[in-house]
Amino acid sequence: MIKALFKHIYKYYKDTFILAIAGVVIGVLVGIIDAAFGLGLNACTAIRTKYFWYLIWFLPLGGVFVWFIYHQFGKSVANGMKMVFHVGLGKNNKLPIRMVPLAVIGTWTTHLFGGSAGREGVAVQIGAAVSNNVGRLVDKTIDIENSRKMFLITGMAAGFSGLFCTPLAAIFFALEVLVAGKLEYHALIPATVASISAAFTSRALGLRKFHINILETLNYHPSTYNAVFLLKLAAMGLCFGIVGSLFALILRYLRLKFAFRFSSPVKKVLIMGAVIAVLMMVFHQGRYSGTGSNLVALCFDGITDDIYAYDWILKMALTILTLSSGFIGGEVAPLFSIGSCLGYVLGPVFGFDPMFGAALGFASVFCSGSNTLLAAILVGVESFGYSMLPFFSVVCFVSFIFNFNNSIFTAQRVAFTR
Amino acid sequence: MIKALFKHIYKYYKDTFILAIAGVVIGVLVGIIDAAFGLGLNACTAIRTKYFWYLIWFLPLGGVFVWFIYHQFGKSVANGMKMVFHVGLGKNNKLPIRMVPLAVIGTWTTHLFGGSAGREGVAVQIGAAVSNNVGRLVDKTIDIENSRKMFLITGMAAGFSGLFCTPLAAIFFALEVLVAGKLEYHALIPATVASISAAFTSRALGLRKFHINILETLNYHPSTYNAVFLLKLAAMGLCFGIVGSLFALILRYLRLKFAFRFSSPVKKVLIMGAVIAVLMMVFHQGRYSGTGSNLVALCFDGITDDIYAYDWILKMALTILTLSSGFIGGEVAPLFSIGSCLGYVLGPVFGFDPMFGAALGFASVFCSGSNTLLAAILVGVESFGYSMLPFFSVVCFVSFIFNFNNSIFTAQRVAFTR
Repeated sequence: MIKALFKHIYKYYKDTFILAIAGVVIGVLVGIIDAAFGLGLNACTAIRTKYFWYLIWFLPLGGVFVWFIYHQFGKSVANGMKMVFHVGLGKNNKLPIRMVPLAVIGTWTTHLFGGSAGREGVAVQIGAAVSNNVGRLVDKTIDIENSRKMFLITGMAAGFSGLFCTPLAAIFFALEVLVAGKLEYHALIPATVASISAAFTSRALGLRKFHINILETLNYHPSTYNAVFLLKLAAMGLCFGIVGSLFALILRYLRLKFAFRFSSPVKKVLIMGAVIAVLMMVFHQGRYSGTGSNLVALCFDGITDDIYAYDWILKMALTILTLSSGFIGGEVAPLFSIGSCLGYVLGPVFGFDPMFGAALGFASVFCSGSNTLLAAILVGVESFGYSMLPFFSVVCFVSFIFNFNNSIFTAQRVAFTR
Repeated sequence: MIKALFKHIYKYYKDTFILAIAGVVIGVLVGIIDAAFGLGLNACTAIRTKYFWYLIWFLPLGGVFVWFIYHQFGKSVANGMKMVFHVGLGKNNKLPIRMVPLAVIGTWTTHLFGGSAGREGVAVQIGAAVSNNVGRLVDKTIDIENSRKMFLITGMAAGFSGLFCTPLAAIFFALEVLVAGKLEYHALIPATVASISAAFTSRALGLRKFHINILETLNYHPSTYNAVFLLKLAAMGLCFGIVGSLFALILRYLRLKFAFRFSSPVKKVLIMGAVIAVLMMVFHQGRYSGTGSNLVALCFDGITDDIYAYDWILKMALTILTLSSGFIGGEVAPLFSIGSCLGYVLGPVFGFDPMFGAALGFASVFCSGSNTLLAAILVGVESFGYSMLPFFSVVCFVSFIFNFNNSIFTAQRVAFTR
């Protein structure tokens, strides 16, 4: 018995060590691809911002192009994030590497022609697909327990971290996203190694992290909080939770609705692309195109009155329309910007500085929308300063509980009652 | 179907709201008892420190007294923490309130006469027992889903938080301790409310939190770390992990061993009490008696050369002896001091300031010994400053993985492979 125990321990740590080494390789590879993807996306955004009035007309055609490349080369990978989850939950084994170029080109196209969408969906797919392929190579020589899942989580952490340069948030995102309430600690070490390697790599290649230490300008100290302060935070968390939840719910509903409504996906993307293009022109000429990082920047530039009270609603509506019409892109970055804009107007209602509200919204609308608690708190502190930990915790706790079991990741499972 | 869904949602949020209200009551009650217990313990420590040479002779008799009160009044509650876990895991329903005075008096006795033990075991039992009794009252009028477990987690959070005044660590301790790798998010809101209420209450009653912002004196910045720095942190985490794991393993082994070795518990506590008393006198006259907060204070007083390289070994040995001989007390505070003393001597080996090493050891030996990751990281940042988050994370990740499935909580379950 003792011998079997030692054998198990030896195998476990040997596996962990091999996975950690593989984690460096995966992290560096994913960091490079993330950097290329991210810098390309920045270029698309810059071009679109400059030539908005030329490009927005082609949004429907861009949508057709996205449909075409998936139709020609990627029928089997059209359902990107769902495939990633199916590998994590043991329903599938293989993630073809061609999902990477397809998702990258699809997302660039969406952003170049003025759709409203995110980018982390792509980053996570990059990470998962690269890691899955590295893992299948490793498997040919070494037998690692539970290797499909281990490599998947490692890759997701690398993908998230390489793009956002928030390694801690990325680790917990990958550990907790498959089954809400369960942490896949088995993959903790490889996920950590891959996440840190990816963040280092993409930063070295020029990708910049979004970071503002807002407590340097604002004066909220954890030791000064009282019951009223905490109740205000909870009330804000409630609002953020409902908005994040609605985002996930409506997106899911409209995706189904449009799929039934239109006789073909080409028709869908053509008609809806035209509708979105018109809306983008009408509502402040491209303000709601792209990831929404422009709105986040406006929230934290220190200038007042440059965020409209309805910014979060329009950003939410246009992102949902873009993503349910067949365009490719993520949901997380728009959740950040929806949350920031909502928090910016909600903060003063509760007597807070708008920037403080915006920071809280940034993390906690993502918390509810993605149904991942620890990742959201950590995204908050890695973006706005570690001393914000108690505030992000309280707001995200409430937001997480008021998510009503919705998630932008429809294949996610939940391990607790809510 | 929609109607059933709404009914479920309504019931869930009604339950959560009622539990949150109950959480305030539980938090305040537990905070008061925790404060009384903690202040009493401080008094015992002060008396013992002053009259060490008078009191240490009576350690064996103190042990017999502890045995006697449990034998007379608390046979059914002698296995305190195990009972708490059994309620959490659904194997038992009821925690008699008399476990509170027994654990309090037992621990005071241990500390007054110079045993080496902790106090959080008592605090968690206080929280769990109070909450269990409040819960059974509530149950008579309102039907709450899963109420035994909900109230247990709420109470554990309150107990931990009321004593250590670290509300975030307490919340995650209670959520994750029952089943490692699983977070009982169902209880998130009541645990949060109870934890914060308890911390407020006990602080208002005069219990002081251990807190040192070590980054104010040391200059480690997250943005300056590189691969070598991270590998050093990982190597330290490995050492801390093994020590915490050994603590749990040897304690478990010796508890069983002594139970078989001695023909009666009275004989055990008399003989072993005498042995411990002699060891306490020989080794620096009481330096290793009590919770070990004296050693932690020496680690962070800025004076060099007042920590011996063997402090952690002796503290570990004497705590294990005390707890396996029939004395009552916790394991967490000694884990803090063992970790700090070890880190203090281990830090300079890796080129770090001893205080930096001590802070890392404080959290991560507890991490491994208790098999709770998030609680340990949060204890670290709530004690030494939120900006230490990345350092505590890396060290605790490694420490947690090298715990070899041991835990001071022998009834704990593990939900992932390791």
